[in-house]
Amino acid sequence: MVSAWRGDTAMKEKKVGKQTYLFNQPLPILSTAGVVGKKEGEGPLGTYFDEVINDPLYGEKSWEMGESKMVQRAIDLALTKANTTYGNLDFMFGGDLLNQIIAASFAARHVPIPFFGLFGACSTFSEALALAGIALDGDFASQVLVTASSHYQTAERQFRYPTELGVQRKPTAHWTVTGAAAVIIGKGTSGVVLTGITVGQVIDMGIKDVNDMGSAMAPAAIDTIRQHFEDTGRGPEYYDVIITGDLGSFGKSLTANILAEAGYDIDKNYTDCGVLIFNPEQDTHVGGSGCACSAVVFANYFYPQLVQGVYRRILLVSTGALLSPTSYQQGESIPAIAHAVVIETL
Amino acid sequence: MVSAWRGDTAMKEKKVGKQTYLFNQPLPILSTAGVVGKKEGEGPLGTYFDEVINDPLYGEKSWEMGESKMVQRAIDLALTKANTTYGNLDFMFGGDLLNQIIAASFAARHVPIPFFGLFGACSTFSEALALAGIALDGDFASQVLVTASSHYQTAERQFRYPTELGVQRKPTAHWTVTGAAAVIIGKGTSGVVLTGITVGQVIDMGIKDVNDMGSAMAPAAIDTIRQHFEDTGRGPEYYDVIITGDLGSFGKSLTANILAEAGYDIDKNYTDCGVLIFNPEQDTHVGGSGCACSAVVFANYFYPQLVQGVYRRILLVSTGALLSPTSYQQGESIPAIAHAVVIETL
Repeated sequence: MVSAWRGDTAMKEKKVGKQTYLFNQPLPILSTAGVVGKKEGEGPLGTYFDEVINDPLYGEKSWEMGESKMVQRAIDLALTKANTTYGNLDFMFGGDLLNQIIAASFAARHVPIPFFGLFGACSTFSEALALAGIALDGDFASQVLVTASSHYQTAERQFRYPTELGVQRKPTAHWTVTGAAAVIIGKGTSGVVLTGITVGQVIDMGIKDVNDMGSAMAPAAIDTIRQHFEDTGRGPEYYDVIITGDLGSFGKSLTANILAEAGYDIDKNYTDCGVLIFNPEQDTHVGGSGCACSAVVFANYFYPQLVQGVYRRILLVSTGALLSPTSYQQGESIPAIAHAVVIETL
Repeated sequence: MVSAWRGDTAMKEKKVGKQTYLFNQPLPILSTAGVVGKKEGEGPLGTYFDEVINDPLYGEKSWEMGESKMVQRAIDLALTKANTTYGNLDFMFGGDLLNQIIAASFAARHVPIPFFGLFGACSTFSEALALAGIALDGDFASQVLVTASSHYQTAERQFRYPTELGVQRKPTAHWTVTGAAAVIIGKGTSGVVLTGITVGQVIDMGIKDVNDMGSAMAPAAIDTIRQHFEDTGRGPEYYDVIITGDLGSFGKSLTANILAEAGYDIDKNYTDCGVLIFNPEQDTHVGGSGCACSAVVFANYFYPQLVQGVYRRILLVSTGALLSPTSYQQGESIPAIAHAVVIETL
């Protein structure tokens, strides 16, 4: 098995196996912040979030600009918590689900630092963490900002139907999480630290049902988790929790079952942010989804527990479905991707 | 002035000034490949491109899948030219203009390596080169693949009007370039080498006219170029050519004039890929645009001239307008961004 923490050796090589990289430097997460919508505030994690914003417009003229303002709010909170300023930050890595990632780009107008716009659908949060780690560990940055957001109303009208239509939802459908998270990562010697990443490939198993994203994304999660274990020689027991982004209850079962068949029994310490964020009584079917799902659950639920020592090692695997309304209306299947990030307490 | 090539010193610090980074290792561009549509093939650079694809569908059922196939074709050509295989590549950095970057993501289904999806609008090519440089110089990769694409028909129907409507175009309008480019970058000691980057901030000067992207993007180009000079102590004379992505004739004049006022006279060695790729007789108004514009012009026009020694140092500044149809229909202004990449012959 590869050593838990590469930093204690003086190896230059960061690549381990086929898709995994272990950082040479401790990259502490300096702060995390999350804001969510009303429904998320009413869910089982409601009391954990920094702020619950009951107005989906957040005082703006459109839901899209409301989402963008949530990103700004999360950034402000993260800056304050980390006791840092834009002057200390080298890059912002951000993205969201909207066409042309306008929630992130429009928020970045107010962020006077270099910006890398990303699109990984609901995997964007771990994609951004991975690139942040690469930039920090490669000595291109001393502090970086990561953001991700999504919004039920903006996503529904963009990907599905106007919410006013009241279209009936399939039992396998997700509910897009309204919210935004911001994370500031730096350099140091201890704390809750990014220690490695497994960067995902695009996986397309031919699934075409846009009302069953869990089945579309599960193969990508399975591929990345399996590859992470293979690359590192670790097994599920290495982690206190393995957390997928937004597979939902159905995609989560699929993932656990297929990984068990591959010899990795993750059931005992496996959960999914989409399953955690809503109660079954909230009529969200298989659970939450969207870039914000894994971002706010990590920022406000898992990160504090890492700080408190409840968990010492987690594997966060945000999952994304890389479709567009154009692609599915053209009858195309749904490519998916999952990136894994290792976060440990040093 | 900062030394031309940071590699000859043994400094760990890569950041120079506020937004510029000089690499510690020579990162040679191993190959470049470009494919374009019929109109680009009929333009002044027509004979330079690797392949001209006369059918905008490229044999597929939709323009979008045609664009994605162009990405695949460019990748195949780049792999062959670099005499390498997927087994040697660590990452793909790719993006395009389409909603949910489906041209890149769908092409990535056929690329069995880790994928980072990016969105920087027409700045995507230099954004991808910048991140590729960071990953390579940080020892996270030994070879990486960069792609960018755009397509007149897919962009028109997504951002403007169905082409069948025959809507009259404003004199300040651009013509989206149809094409795709792929670049493979590695490590080595000589050749045509990435030596530095200046990563752009989002700049929004309040411009709202979606038929005048040159004016919207010029402030971002000006900001990044000026910052590059300030960070490095270099002046325009350091470069054989300074190349913006797709400002077009109007945005190009704006950029040159405002930089001259700031004390940087770039007029003598400044050009724009959007101006180069079409003839005024081709009815493309201010010129070409789209992620493919700077990507194919770099891949098939500038890179070969760097290899041949016609040029020894260029500054490539791809420019992006980060709007969406939703944002402009909501009356929002157009945020823009520009990333600069230094490419030199060692």
